[in-house]
Amino acid sequence: MRLRGRKGIREALETQAELIVLNPAAYKGKWKDVFGNYRPIHVELGMGKGRFISQLSSLNPEINYIGVDMYDELLRRAGEKAVQSREENGGTLANLRLALFNIEKIGDMFETDELERIYLNFSDPWPKKRHARRRLTYSAFVRKYIDILNDNGEIHFKTDSRSLFEFSLNSLADMGLRMRNISLDLHADGPRTDLVMTEYETKFYEQGMNIYRLEAVIGQAALERHLLSLERDIQENGE
Amino acid sequence: MRLRGRKGIREALETQAELIVLNPAAYKGKWKDVFGNYRPIHVELGMGKGRFISQLSSLNPEINYIGVDMYDELLRRAGEKAVQSREENGGTLANLRLALFNIEKIGDMFETDELERIYLNFSDPWPKKRHARRRLTYSAFVRKYIDILNDNGEIHFKTDSRSLFEFSLNSLADMGLRMRNISLDLHADGPRTDLVMTEYETKFYEQGMNIYRLEAVIGQAALERHLLSLERDIQENGE
Ligand SMILES: C[S@@+](CC[C@H](N)C(=O)[O-])C[C@H]1O[C@@H](n2cnc3c(N)ncnc32)[C@H](O)[C@@H]1O
Ligand SMILES: C[S@@+](CC[C@H](N)C(=O)[O-])C[C@H]1O[C@@H](n2cnc3c(N)ncnc32)[C@H](O)[C@@H]1O
Repeated sequence: MRLRGRKGIREALETQAELIVLNPAAYKGKWKDVFGNYRPIHVELGMGKGRFISQLSSLNPEINYIGVDMYDELLRRAGEKAVQSREENGGTLANLRLALFNIEKIGDMFETDELERIYLNFSDPWPKKRHARRRLTYSAFVRKYIDILNDNGEIHFKTDSRSLFEFSLNSLADMGLRMRNISLDLHADGPRTDLVMTEYETKFYEQGMNIYRLEAVIGQAALERHLLSLERDIQENGE
Repeated sequence: MRLRGRKGIREALETQAELIVLNPAAYKGKWKDVFGNYRPIHVELGMGKGRFISQLSSLNPEINYIGVDMYDELLRRAGEKAVQSREENGGTLANLRLALFNIEKIGDMFETDELERIYLNFSDPWPKKRHARRRLTYSAFVRKYIDILNDNGEIHFKTDSRSLFEFSLNSLADMGLRMRNISLDLHADGPRTDLVMTEYETKFYEQGMNIYRLEAVIGQAALERHLLSLERDIQENGE
């Protein structure tokens, strides 16, 4: 039964080839061709049911969006939500793709400098220390993000987990990223709907839980790479 | 009455000229002479009753410590605590000074690069927005700290106030400092007595309140200054 169900989902997804990308690694370095323009690309890693990316892509037609998740059932639901959010907010689906992919291999899906922003919303906290490597802000992940983001690149991160937020602050700082707009109680003055709330966020917010948020910018890491290459140049030129 | 009381305090402080410094601005750029050696100088701004600086200076004879506060009564109590902590933990008072000074003028007390570490422990949170400039991590203060800290300099900050911690994370990051060892629940796994608890901290800890902590390092800000001067050099040399 389960197999038939899953097969049914795949077939449904295949009929939406414009929106749903089942083999995203095929487009590494070519996402501008997929969208047919050079606009900045923003990606949500672990989009879940997709409300956030659907609404954001509806509100900002000048940005291209890609939602990534590894479960086809979530892609199906996100696809429905995308169609629905167009009916509510207007816009076309031209600037949105939903991709079935495992974030662990994100370097196979995007080329160096191909992205301008990565959203991480309510990523699984993996609270046990021995699972630290699975956290989406673990250094090995962040290293990949830095590679695929361009020099204007940013990582926007929201979570309800204090321990994951603490871990992420340290991990991002250790990787040389500069943080800004750090919030330890995002909705303290009423819901920040301007940032678009995700499914998890709405649930936690209604339970009165604290939401943490930060933005990390690549600039600093880029500056250091730049400094190192400058120093190398000077040495080579005997200055 | 109050005046007589205060006068009494001053007289008592004057008898402890080795430990208590009532005119610290006179030693700007000369603190190594005060201590009689070139060891690193660590300063606590707003030491209150002085338990933290007393204990730390007793534990680390190879570091010179200066506790700063603007109330003479607090200096008196901190002086008592210093003597007491020597009786308990050993050590001499040679590596400790307690200075009466207003932190707003901290640039009049220390020369550029004169310090290696600044501790800010449970600084007044000044929660109202219109008082933001009084917070000891407000940009104008941080700029002064960056100046008086050397390139190995660090700021160690602890607070019970979520709003002050949030403000400080942003302020320090905006000033180009890199953060590390960020903790959103310092005593989660039992009291971190290795870091020496302050009077306020013990009180808040016993009330079950959350303690936040971070370290900010100058290195990054220094790197940027270095980069800018390198680029200027290259331009001037027509490279
Ligand atoms: C806790 S949910 C959050 C969903 C959504 N961002 C929200 O805020 O409502 C985390 C999502 O990340 C996805 N995810 C976790 N690890 C992943 C991986 N390695 N590759 C792709 N998706 C992953 C999960 O399938 C899940 O949908
Ligand atoms: C909340 S108490 C914390 C005392 C101590 N650090 C502790 O953790 O127990 C803040 C201290 O900062 C001092 N302080 C505040 N503003 C100051 C300023 N501008 N100059 C000097 N001291 C100041 C106050 O006098 C007070 O002792």
